[in-house]
This record gives sequence, structure tokens and C-alpha cells, in this order.
Amino acid sequence: MAVTVVGSIAFDAVRTPFGSRERMLGGSAVHFALAASFFDQVRVIGPVGDDFGQREYEVLRSRGVDTSGIEHVEGGRTFFWAGEYGWDLGERETLDTQLGVFADFEPKLSEAARASEVVFLANIQPELQQRVRQQCRAAWFVALDSMNRWIETARDSLIEAISAVDCLLLNDSELRELTREPNLVKAARQIREWGPRFVVAKQGRYGAALVSEEGFFALPAFPLETVVDPTGAGDSFAGGFMGYIASHGDAVDHSVLTRAMAYGTALGSFNVEAFGVERVSRLTPAEISERVSELHRITQFTPA
Amino acid sequence: MAVTVVGSIAFDAVRTPFGSRERMLGGSAVHFALAASFFDQVRVIGPVGDDFGQREYEVLRSRGVDTSGIEHVEGGRTFFWAGEYGWDLGERETLDTQLGVFADFEPKLSEAARASEVVFLANIQPELQQRVRQQCRAAWFVALDSMNRWIETARDSLIEAISAVDCLLLNDSELRELTREPNLVKAARQIREWGPRFVVAKQGRYGAALVSEEGFFALPAFPLETVVDPTGAGDSFAGGFMGYIASHGDAVDHSVLTRAMAYGTALGSFNVEAFGVERVSRLTPAEISERVSELHRITQFTPA
Repeated sequence: MAVTVVGSIAFDAVRTPFGSRERMLGGSAVHFALAASFFDQVRVIGPVGDDFGQREYEVLRSRGVDTSGIEHVEGGRTFFWAGEYGWDLGERETLDTQLGVFADFEPKLSEAARASEVVFLANIQPELQQRVRQQCRAAWFVALDSMNRWIETARDSLIEAISAVDCLLLNDSELRELTREPNLVKAARQIREWGPRFVVAKQGRYGAALVSEEGFFALPAFPLETVVDPTGAGDSFAGGFMGYIASHGDAVDHSVLTRAMAYGTALGSFNVEAFGVERVSRLTPAEISERVSELHRITQFTPA
Repeated sequence: MAVTVVGSIAFDAVRTPFGSRERMLGGSAVHFALAASFFDQVRVIGPVGDDFGQREYEVLRSRGVDTSGIEHVEGGRTFFWAGEYGWDLGERETLDTQLGVFADFEPKLSEAARASEVVFLANIQPELQQRVRQQCRAAWFVALDSMNRWIETARDSLIEAISAVDCLLLNDSELRELTREPNLVKAARQIREWGPRFVVAKQGRYGAALVSEEGFFALPAFPLETVVDPTGAGDSFAGGFMGYIASHGDAVDHSVLTRAMAYGTALGSFNVEAFGVERVSRLTPAEISERVSELHRITQFTPA
């Protein structure tokens, strides 16, 4: 089973208290694809400009990612984002956003992509997410991510996009903002009434929670001494989560979902250990298994 | 084995988006004592004024709490705190603090109290915590809580108090502030170098983490649809945590600690379901067991 991701492919400039990068490979689709590549075949769909070269393709291809859906726009510039994180990496400020080829992006899905069974609609304009969703008629598991910008400028369209997917992954605070409901349990119920069977609340350094028909499930984040750059952690989480689900066929039962949460948590934790994709692009399956085992060890207890 | 708590006994005025109370029983020692009373004998030490009457004593006594260490100061007024919470209960503002009899409080421990084996030094002035600690020579498990006020005005004295206890319980953000270390793992290591064997990071709506020689352990908060008033949740957590430890003898091994974290989480979750002590004072042991089982269900997974 293959996973298709539609989202941004970017160059990022990032400053954190632990260093900086002037121009590194990034973007939601890239972070997602690298993380998901440890579990299943991954196809990336998104636009790049003339500045996107062999070195960048090679990062994806060396992990076996299918890059045939990356659309090269002649004369264009790849999406660029610059941001800076505060002392405890909890808050970040966007310093610059240059849409470049993303401004006129209209996802064109190949026949193969339209036949995708598992699809991740990374954070892009909700109308585009809707149009991609409509093209993927064979998909049995479609998840969507978004951000405060779309909640504030295109809420109705975002809710329409959400209503057509199986799973919403969103930051905890954005779930509250989107539903205008401060209580997470109630916010998740509202989302599920709109359509999705599953809601994942990403809580950054505090972990992640899943709400489904079966109820609630939550895991803390993996404790790390070295956190260098949180950029892309949510997409790496999504990649581990969706990759694990895709690799387990269409029986998305509770035990598969709870393990998917653990794999998502593991991938998110590796992501933040270095800048951009530096850590995940040199990760090994053994390291992932070891981290999931460790996550198991630090979260399990036996009631009296 | 009995648990002794030294801390504030108070009247609180609280406004939340879900209602308000003009004058309700509160204080760290009270919240702690009621929570711990489900596990073991509890003794409360703290001052009250003339306004503290039979009704208040009765709340504690009906849960079997030993109130002989409550010092009635003739002509004095009981500590009073007024605060207001924002829309999602994440932030609170202190509107009024009247120290009353707490201004001149000097803990006088009875012989029985001095023989306590498990002691909780709730959030009071660090010098007082030190003096209580020195009097409790038989104690094999002493835990301490504090707050940003003491970090900002009496950091050296607080660190000295911390160095003499077995366990520090503190809000996540205060741990960072106290150690001036943004990374929780490193902050906890710093604390452990000062003396305590155990560090508990309270993370409010996100749960709690424990750091010990055995490493890290974390649990998410219990998901609730109805959260009315967070006042005292941290002290109820501490009461469940310490009460469970006290009731299991002096063998504080990893499995006891992980279960103590679960009981702390359960008691903290009940605390927030109603104003002040309203929920915990009418709690039953069966409800606690059921919540711990449910917490187990929503946090456990089996690695592939």
C-alpha cells in the first residue's frame, strides 16, 4: 500500500538558541515523506522551482520516496520560510514567507496518485485540500493537517475539507480555536460530528492525544536532552502515524492506532534532535524500534 | 504509616467561565489532605483564624483527617486568596491575597508530627519548609512543592530547602525557571544533583512526568469533559501520589512510583471537576479505582 502526501516542499531558514541554518530542505510534505518512508512506499506531490536541485531530490530518493509527483515550475522559486524560536523552543516567530511556486499551485494527480489508498493532506489552502480529496476516490484513509492561518481566514472552507477526511491532525490550541471550544474532549467530539472518525491533538513537547469511537488515547512526548529544532516535528509525527497505519492494511483497529501514535511520537522525537531533515534522513529502522520500546517502558504501569 | 502535610489552610474566592465561589474552603494543605486521606492516615499542620469554624473542620474530619495540628490563632483571620481563570482555564490571575494568620506562621510540630515518616511540605516560604524538614528526623520520604514567587524572591533559600528533601513536585514551567534550564530532562538532572532522588514535573492539562534514577516516566492528564475549577489540582495530585507511596511502606520502587503517578493523576482529575474541595470531599474509593483503570486503558499500548 502506498502513502501519498500533498503539501509544501520548501527551503527553510531557522534560528534556534542552539544554532541556525540559512537554507535547508524542509516543508510539510518532505518531513512527512521521510518519516513515512520507514513504513511504506511514499509518493510526494508538490511544486518546486529552479532552485530545487539534485541534492534535494537525492534526500528523498535515498529514502526510496517516489518524487515523480514533484512538479518543477520553470522560472519559479521554491517556497521559502524563515523563523526563529525562543529560549525554550516553545514559541516561534515567522520572519519571512515567500510563496514562490506555491502561489499558483494546483495539484495535478497522476492516475497512480488518484488510486492512492492512504493520503495525507498536509497544511495547505483548504480549497486545494478539498480538490485533492475529491480526486482520490479509492482512498480508505485520508488525514488532514492545517494551521491557525486557515482557521482565521478560511474557516468554512477548512471545515468543509475536514468533513471529507477520516482523520484530522491538528495542534491542540488550533483544535480549540477551530471549534471555539476550550475543552479538548468536547472539541474533538465537535470535529467528529463534522465527519472525521479520528482526531489527533498534537501537543508539542507534551505529546499527543487521539480521540476515536473507542474513546481517548494519549502518549507523552519522548523525553529528550537534546532538542535543536522543532520545525517539521508535527509532520514527522504524521508521517510515522500514517506510515504505520498504511503498512497495516485497511483494518484500522484500536491497537493499530495506539501503535501508530507511538510510531508518530518516535518519528516526531527524532525530527527535533537536529535541524530540518538532518536527523530523520539518516535514521535507521532499528533506532525507531528501540525508541518505541523505550516509549513503552516510560509510559506503562500496572494498576494495583 | 501516617502522612503529615504542612501548608496553607485557606478560604478561596474563585471565578471561572463556569461559575464562581465567594468564599470556599481551600489551601494547599487542605487539598492535599483530602486527596491523601483515601490512602492513609493524614495529619494537617497549618494556622487558621477565628473565621475557621466547625463546618470547615468537619470537611476534614469526615475524611478521617487528624486536625489536631491545626493552630487556631485568636483574633486572626484565615489566609484568603482570590483568583480568576481565563476561557480555557489555562491561565489564572490572582486578584487578592490576604495572608492573615499566615503572616506570622511558625510551624510547631507535636511529638507525633515530628515522628512522621512521610511529609509533604506544601507551597509556603522556603525557610519554613527548611525548619519543618529539620524537625522531622524520622521521615524517609519528604516531598516539597513551591511556586514562582519563591523562585523569584528566595531562590537560594528554596534550593537549600529542596536539597534536604527526597522529592520535588513543581510545575513544569517553574522547574525551568528555577533551574534556568529550558530542557526538562536537564532541569530534572540539575534538581537531582541538588539532592532529591525524585522530581515530578506537573504539566497541568497535559499530565505529569517523573524523573528518578530509573529514568523517566510520564502520564497524560485524564481527559475530562467537565472542568470547572483547577484550583488545588496540583495539591490533590500530590495527595494521591504521596498517599499511595505512604500506604506502600518504605520500599519506593519503580512500580510503586508509577502507580503513585497514576493515583496522583486520578485525584488531580477529580479535583477539577467541581469548585474547591467539593468533588474530592464526596469521592469514593471505588471511583478512584475506576479512574485509574480507565487511565490505564487510555495510555497503554503493545509495541508491534
